[in-house]
Amino acid sequence: MKTITLKQIAEELNISVTTVSKALKDYPDVSKKTRQRVLDLAKDLNYIPNSFAVSLRMQQSKTIGVIVPATVHHFFSNVIKGILKEAEKKDYLVILLHSNENYELEKKQVDLLISKGVDGILISLSNKTNNFEHLQKIIDHDIPLVLFDKIAKTVKCSKVIVDDRKAAYDVVSHLIKKGHRRIAHFRGDLNPQNSIDRFLGYKQALLDHDIDFDPTLVYMCNNNSDFEDGYSNAEKLLKDHGKTIDAIFTITDVIAIGIIKYFTDHNIKIPEDIALFGFSNWFMASVISPALSSVEQHGYEMGEKSAHIVFQEIDSKHNDMPIEPQIVVLPTELIIRDSC
Amino acid sequence: MKTITLKQIAEELNISVTTVSKALKDYPDVSKKTRQRVLDLAKDLNYIPNSFAVSLRMQQSKTIGVIVPATVHHFFSNVIKGILKEAEKKDYLVILLHSNENYELEKKQVDLLISKGVDGILISLSNKTNNFEHLQKIIDHDIPLVLFDKIAKTVKCSKVIVDDRKAAYDVVSHLIKKGHRRIAHFRGDLNPQNSIDRFLGYKQALLDHDIDFDPTLVYMCNNNSDFEDGYSNAEKLLKDHGKTIDAIFTITDVIAIGIIKYFTDHNIKIPEDIALFGFSNWFMASVISPALSSVEQHGYEMGEKSAHIVFQEIDSKHNDMPIEPQIVVLPTELIIRDSC
Repeated sequence: MKTITLKQIAEELNISVTTVSKALKDYPDVSKKTRQRVLDLAKDLNYIPNSFAVSLRMQQSKTIGVIVPATVHHFFSNVIKGILKEAEKKDYLVILLHSNENYELEKKQVDLLISKGVDGILISLSNKTNNFEHLQKIIDHDIPLVLFDKIAKTVKCSKVIVDDRKAAYDVVSHLIKKGHRRIAHFRGDLNPQNSIDRFLGYKQALLDHDIDFDPTLVYMCNNNSDFEDGYSNAEKLLKDHGKTIDAIFTITDVIAIGIIKYFTDHNIKIPEDIALFGFSNWFMASVISPALSSVEQHGYEMGEKSAHIVFQEIDSKHNDMPIEPQIVVLPTELIIRDSC
Repeated sequence: MKTITLKQIAEELNISVTTVSKALKDYPDVSKKTRQRVLDLAKDLNYIPNSFAVSLRMQQSKTIGVIVPATVHHFFSNVIKGILKEAEKKDYLVILLHSNENYELEKKQVDLLISKGVDGILISLSNKTNNFEHLQKIIDHDIPLVLFDKIAKTVKCSKVIVDDRKAAYDVVSHLIKKGHRRIAHFRGDLNPQNSIDRFLGYKQALLDHDIDFDPTLVYMCNNNSDFEDGYSNAEKLLKDHGKTIDAIFTITDVIAIGIIKYFTDHNIKIPEDIALFGFSNWFMASVISPALSSVEQHGYEMGEKSAHIVFQEIDSKHNDMPIEPQIVVLPTELIIRDSC
């Protein structure tokens, strides 16, 4: 027997799925007449109300899939912790995959998760992902999808992010208020939205404070998590600009720690000679000398929220309720320490 | 029809399972006579050789379960990376769970994984686990089990560890050779085998170098990953012993970093006043000031090896070959930096 869905009833009666659902659940905000029409048609079509559809629901795998770009990464470790905690509450299991910042691998892993029949998927995109067909495939398979942190703006699904642009804007405004004007930016790769947004926030803050944007002060770190990238770019920066630079704002704390290492090796004082501001508030930011100012991104909460949304959507789907993609922007905080 | 196993054939003929397997595969080191006896019985019993048993093998879930005590942990992040890499090669998926150092949760998660029908399980035990019935349950369900890093000696399964005792012995011997004699140990919790072994290695090195073991120099850190535990114990140590201490050997780098913070705040010079040696070689050990000497535990290789063994055992099981538990001891390395 073909399963009758709320959607079919809604279409037949030319009303919304939400109204059908509410009518079946006897919500007071549905008119008596509409309610009767829904109940009659449901009866005619042999619709099985969800309270009796437990056995159908058992077809759920009670498993979600999670793809992160890297596991050896303080921020993503925190996100994973938040996801596992939330999954635990719902008795869900989590299949973890890492794309290793590799688009092809990410695509393959999406296929694996779809073939495995997971109930929902959470992804933080690899830096190399600039084609989103694999994400569309998830949506086409009617599997709830939540993107977090590194997202694709154009894909129609729920997203959990921090306002990277505002956070970067706040950092650079703070540095300007402290009297710095020649502020370099060690930016991330060109693809990721968060790398773009942090760069745009940096630029906007300069312009809003009447400081000309100087593209020669922007250095590219291809691997945000590579301490060496910070070290070698610090060397380049000094070669290019000497000590005319007042401050550096980096895409991640790891890059900033590479700079600290270079400056320590070359007797450049932080913050006296050059101030420093990181991003992500890794554990080591608080313990390194000088302690590093950074942006707290609340990875744990991001994981928790992303999982929460995917479970909501899984529930909606199984209750034949429509899924409305949500965009959640989590607050960030500037953590001011000795480096600036 | 009941499936005939190699074990039944072996028992019937009173020879080993390995011999039966080799006979069926036409290995040259099985006598002609034995080979014929095996083939005849296999035919009589309607044994399905494995080359035809592909459909049976399809019952595999192609999924393994992994339980770690924590995810926000540099060492375990590396282990997870190694496991994911190895699983990828074999087209296996990994269900990740964290026990949060909680025995009850670990037990519940084992039940979940068993009920889920995973093909194999990898566990690093929580610090609070001192009853191993849940591990025995896995073995009784005939599911390949590999314990890594934090293991239970008495459980009959494969194990991947580092020689914690030897590593600790080497650390303390190194400190003694550098002229230190009053060496404190900030140890871990009482349950975990690695905490016990590092303590025993410390003690043995003292004794072998004719230094009396002084129990008042041993401080307990209940949470190895809690930087505050290092900070507060450093305070206690100085209150108890003043600056009579030459060096401190800590159960983990995080504890050592807590000590560095306390010493920096109180103007105690490392290594001039007190030398310091950590364990695990976290990323930050190399970037903190002073750079911290530590023991490299090769977490990535541990994950890779553990997964490799579980896949071997899954294969053996599906080929009706006996599983011989292995104990793999991975080498460690002393990484000498500025702190000693």
